[in-house]
Amino acid sequence: MAKIKHSSAYICGMNIPSKLIENAVNAFATLPGIGRKTALRLALHLLNTDAAATETFTEAIGKMRREVRFCRDCHNVSDAELCTICLSARRDRHTICVVESLRDLLAIENTGQYGGLYHILGGVISPMEGIGPNELNIDTLVERLRKGETKELVMALNATIEGDATIFYISKQLAEFDVKISTIARGVSFGGELEYADELTLGRSIVARTDYRMQ
Amino acid sequence: MAKIKHSSAYICGMNIPSKLIENAVNAFATLPGIGRKTALRLALHLLNTDAAATETFTEAIGKMRREVRFCRDCHNVSDAELCTICLSARRDRHTICVVESLRDLLAIENTGQYGGLYHILGGVISPMEGIGPNELNIDTLVERLRKGETKELVMALNATIEGDATIFYISKQLAEFDVKISTIARGVSFGGELEYADELTLGRSIVARTDYRMQ
Repeated sequence: MAKIKHSSAYICGMNIPSKLIENAVNAFATLPGIGRKTALRLALHLLNTDAAATETFTEAIGKMRREVRFCRDCHNVSDAELCTICLSARRDRHTICVVESLRDLLAIENTGQYGGLYHILGGVISPMEGIGPNELNIDTLVERLRKGETKELVMALNATIEGDATIFYISKQLAEFDVKISTIARGVSFGGELEYADELTLGRSIVARTDYRMQ
Repeated sequence: MAKIKHSSAYICGMNIPSKLIENAVNAFATLPGIGRKTALRLALHLLNTDAAATETFTEAIGKMRREVRFCRDCHNVSDAELCTICLSARRDRHTICVVESLRDLLAIENTGQYGGLYHILGGVISPMEGIGPNELNIDTLVERLRKGETKELVMALNATIEGDATIFYISKQLAEFDVKISTIARGVSFGGELEYADELTLGRSIVARTDYRMQ
């Protein structure tokens, strides 16, 4: 049997005869969840479609990255200086929900259960990854509170050591303000089975049990 | 419970507050195997990386589509007028393997068992999809045979009605040339179990059985 030769453009067992395709495959493979095999499929797909389609594709993505702006107040993505949530007259301006990322904001919005404003931190304090309070949007949160409109901060961060440390740091920073700080409820999921819930969650859900008649 | 509102930028249960992101998500979602949920994840990923990374990404893909050339002889992708296979001095110039697409060429190359040249048709004859012989690279194949160097054509097309019709059409076109036309062997896969092989394949593999001592 002949030996298969490995060259620089060797992708998923296929020797790609073009440096240009190789670069495009490498570009696709930088995306999360896209391996080199999928990247090759995507690149060959674009080669088979007409050139204008690829132009539209790259232009839409490049334009998004170049032109998307972030809301001055809450750091939500926005096509203008303030985002649609901050501009909305129907939102409760006394409550700010503090989240780590845009994805978390979208997830909460999607529930349809929250009518207040948001504040995207852009991460959580994580000394291991070199993220300190200065890397996060904490100063702009303090500024917002200084305006005196806010009555409650809902901390909707992930229940990790970093998340808890971030909540602790923020609460210290806000000691001067007369604002209620709450965290989202933890407990067994709806539809979750008790026997499969982890001990911490199940334990917390018993300690923080809610009055049945008050629900 | 509050009702979830559907707006124009409603993607996978998430109300995207930016037309630019929506366009980028739509662009990603045109790719095969990328749904809108994955497309959203990819777009948000690029938003979180720095702008130069997105620039590199779109540039690599755009450049590929704009600048990739196809080999004058065999229609393989190539960074120059002739591809590396056609230019190689180590390939058997008397044999041409006729394939439908670049993917098929790469798959055959990957086996390391073929040392001849290729010819990419760019499809197969398919009246249902409006693909006639003129849409395929058949005239250039005839031209190559006219040079008189070719002794054998290996037809490596898929065993479909369209593939068979294409082989038949090509063999008619080439009646004037003294060239052997062969097709790749069909039979039960190595590792494939007989009881799961389809009847046609198993039947063919018995009719076209090979001499054990000649292998």
